[in-house]
Amino acid sequence: MENTTTPSKRTGGRSAAVIHNVRTAVEELVEEKGQDRVTVPMIAERAGVNPTSIYRRWGDLPTLINDIATYQLDPSRPLPERGDLRADLTEWARELGEHYRNPVNAALLRGGASAAGERQSNCLRNRRIEANLLLERYPDASITDDDILDTVVAPIVYRVIFLPWTLEDTTAEHLVARLFH
Amino acid sequence: MENTTTPSKRTGGRSAAVIHNVRTAVEELVEEKGQDRVTVPMIAERAGVNPTSIYRRWGDLPTLINDIATYQLDPSRPLPERGDLRADLTEWARELGEHYRNPVNAALLRGGASAAGERQSNCLRNRRIEANLLLERYPDASITDDDILDTVVAPIVYRVIFLPWTLEDTTAEHLVARLFH
Repeated sequence: MENTTTPSKRTGGRSAAVIHNVRTAVEELVEEKGQDRVTVPMIAERAGVNPTSIYRRWGDLPTLINDIATYQLDPSRPLPERGDLRADLTEWARELGEHYRNPVNAALLRGGASAAGERQSNCLRNRRIEANLLLERYPDASITDDDILDTVVAPIVYRVIFLPWTLEDTTAEHLVARLFH
Repeated sequence: MENTTTPSKRTGGRSAAVIHNVRTAVEELVEEKGQDRVTVPMIAERAGVNPTSIYRRWGDLPTLINDIATYQLDPSRPLPERGDLRADLTEWARELGEHYRNPVNAALLRGGASAAGERQSNCLRNRRIEANLLLERYPDASITDDDILDTVVAPIVYRVIFLPWTLEDTTAEHLVARLFH
């Protein structure tokens, strides 16, 4: 239950609990009902928060779905640190593939895709930030963030959306190998 | 108005007219109302066909949307023939990018994305068929259809869905260059 005098973007304490409860509610409801049958009032009820708290924080359902779809790939988590760009990227790509092999995350990404286009996707923005954090460690690499997005992230996202059964244990390694070939 | 004794998969004459009218109706309605507000009865009315004709041919709305989203990239159209794999692929990729710079086609692709995952996408299947047709002309090329899908098609589709404003005149050329670098 969010106190309305609390700034809605505060990330500690009660606010963090709201985010956590809303995220769990969305994941459960998507799994139970399918992503197109989930509504904001339904999420609010399950999370034990007021619908207005959801609208205030996320604006609308597509934004919420987009946000939740990538929440587990928390941009503040530690990134792989193997001392080698190729190894770091491979592990990072493997994490991304693993995340989306969970059918709930894949369904949420598809939902986010249908709502995307007019707004910048958090999924994309966070992956680009991370690609740049990895690149910063290796200033001599001749690879750019666009190369990583196009060659590694795009094929994973494309498979998640259109061909989830082609995501394999070796996909990340293959894609990163292509980047270095 | 489709005669119910006509095999529903016949592609000439009346059947072709039904497909054409349904396609036009979907494009107009998506542009007017946005993709999530379009329904089968609405399409049927606009196209002057019975809703059952639509259900019989396409099964459901997501399949219809998926189908229509890629109809203009008719798989029987002539493919570029420049006598050089790189030139052919560049022209082919440019065509794909051009197709999806039309906001209606992009919206339809996003709609198809949200319905994809459980079924094979026509968009993807047709692009793979075409990639193989192009490759067959150049048996000495060391490129595979997977390379083309991952390196050229996936980044275009990814941009169309999540970052349409980054699709530029030079995108196709850049992506194909990466394949040959």
